[in-house]
Amino acid sequence: MTKRINHQWRLVARPVGMIKETDFEWAEEPVSSPAENQVLVRNLYLSLDPANRGWMREEGSYMKPIPLGSVMLGGTIGVVEESRHPNFIEGDKVQGFLGWQEYGLAEGSTLRKLPDNPNIPLTAYLGLFGVIGMTAYFGLLDITDPKPGETLVVSAAAGAVGSITGQIGKIKGCRVVGIAGSDEKCKWITEELGFDAAINYKTEKLREAFKRTCPNGIDIYFDNVGGETLDAVLGRINLGARISICGMISQYNATAPVPGPYNLINILTMRARVQGFIVLDYLPRAPEALADLTRWYQEGKLKYRVDVVEGLKNAPGALNKLFDGTNQGKLIISI
Amino acid sequence: MTKRINHQWRLVARPVGMIKETDFEWAEEPVSSPAENQVLVRNLYLSLDPANRGWMREEGSYMKPIPLGSVMLGGTIGVVEESRHPNFIEGDKVQGFLGWQEYGLAEGSTLRKLPDNPNIPLTAYLGLFGVIGMTAYFGLLDITDPKPGETLVVSAAAGAVGSITGQIGKIKGCRVVGIAGSDEKCKWITEELGFDAAINYKTEKLREAFKRTCPNGIDIYFDNVGGETLDAVLGRINLGARISICGMISQYNATAPVPGPYNLINILTMRARVQGFIVLDYLPRAPEALADLTRWYQEGKLKYRVDVVEGLKNAPGALNKLFDGTNQGKLIISI
Repeated sequence: MTKRINHQWRLVARPVGMIKETDFEWAEEPVSSPAENQVLVRNLYLSLDPANRGWMREEGSYMKPIPLGSVMLGGTIGVVEESRHPNFIEGDKVQGFLGWQEYGLAEGSTLRKLPDNPNIPLTAYLGLFGVIGMTAYFGLLDITDPKPGETLVVSAAAGAVGSITGQIGKIKGCRVVGIAGSDEKCKWITEELGFDAAINYKTEKLREAFKRTCPNGIDIYFDNVGGETLDAVLGRINLGARISICGMISQYNATAPVPGPYNLINILTMRARVQGFIVLDYLPRAPEALADLTRWYQEGKLKYRVDVVEGLKNAPGALNKLFDGTNQGKLIISI
Repeated sequence: MTKRINHQWRLVARPVGMIKETDFEWAEEPVSSPAENQVLVRNLYLSLDPANRGWMREEGSYMKPIPLGSVMLGGTIGVVEESRHPNFIEGDKVQGFLGWQEYGLAEGSTLRKLPDNPNIPLTAYLGLFGVIGMTAYFGLLDITDPKPGETLVVSAAAGAVGSITGQIGKIKGCRVVGIAGSDEKCKWITEELGFDAAINYKTEKLREAFKRTCPNGIDIYFDNVGGETLDAVLGRINLGARISICGMISQYNATAPVPGPYNLINILTMRARVQGFIVLDYLPRAPEALADLTRWYQEGKLKYRVDVVEGLKNAPGALNKLFDGTNQGKLIISI
């Protein structure tokens, strides 16, 4: 093979607060050939997710911290260029975890071959039919067991996970209230996705907004942000409330310790349950989620949108869109 | 009947911070006669519990706040003086909720007749064989499902609920670590009750103490205090940890909002579950708890102690013992 060049972003500094481009280094190296059982993949799409920020921290999160000097990690979709694994041939579309680079080598066992379905764009496997959809599915259904008529509040409701979570809540018969950061997002989730009500947290006080939108209190909260929003929710929960902790975006860029909710004691008085989860624990049950998500999608009950940013070079800047509220739907880099 | 006098403590002010005797009024009124289906009880013992403090708050807790001017509420054991209910006769020992007074009238249906067992003192029905024992039993077993070999941490471990909780943890095969506020209490729970280790939070930093006493991390936390202790525990929980929120003593006397734990995000990274409960929800399952507790007690696996203060007049001052760390075991007023 001709010597091709693999461009990549390497993590070279632990970010303090928001991510800076200087936390990364734009590097290049020759594309390597696969060893026995390996596959060489040319990446087409890179998934950007709030969890990425946690992986960069010195303290780590649910994964070990990414070592400084190594390629930034991330979920990818690509096409097989060369295979020395029996399950893959050149041209196969595959999903993997190959990071912020144009080419990647992977053990065949770590790749998932994607079906050739003309009705489902490849990017959907980074969203609705990938980890995003499963996060919404298990984080809502398994952790909170929603019942018809209950009030479900979702934060980051116009985001990739939040928008699907709210729609699943509607499918299950809940009254669904979404919290988002712009009037446009609020309009989208109510008018397009069918949420019952929306709160623009940038223009309305949450406490008052909950009185308006959750007249019967809050039974379920799907938390993507933590911080003051979680606190305000705890101030209005009902007896037996369930809170699914999916993420705490508000804290990922914190440079000082963040106090927890002042209303924590309501967990006691309301006999509430607060439970964290990581979707990786549910991967063995992926088929269960994909079957339901596919059916609901085909029935027109689930909509999603992707926010595609062109060019791997733009990845560091694009990642901040997840924290400053400017992204809309699943954020993806087209490489 | 001759006109007898019923002395009583009435709540006349909402306490700010610690309870003051001036929050109560020592009053008297004639003893009334029972109406149809009612029973007149002469109270012998009054139970004092941390939860009493919550009932006094304007905002209430899991009960409506006690109205100002009315008799302070509390669990009682007494003897029937006069009965107009078919299930009770004069001389019966009964458990009820007759409050801080010498005599009380109750509907017969709200009283529990106590067995005449020479091996079990009456005060035990306010402790091990009452709400206290059930709180430990269900709050540990039902909420956290302890497994042999897991590390269980209990706060207020020398208190009425904590001391029983830790012993049940030992019965279930856990490594049990108790947090208490004096060396004497620490000695009692390790040497007399069989806890594996104890931490005197007044002389040792919790973070260091957990390294010493919980070398394999914390799997289960039975929380009676909230606040900084809960925060420190969250800093050392294992994957899949369960936290049972039984009480938050540290906050009951707070005069300003109390921030929640800084380590709250560990609920997410450790996929932990935090659940509040109130023992009243478990009353229908009381026989289940009493059967086990009685058996364990008879097998010598459960010990308890009571801290009896003489005289109803001393109740307001005695209640503060629950918050300043000076009581030892179940706090009871002998009327």
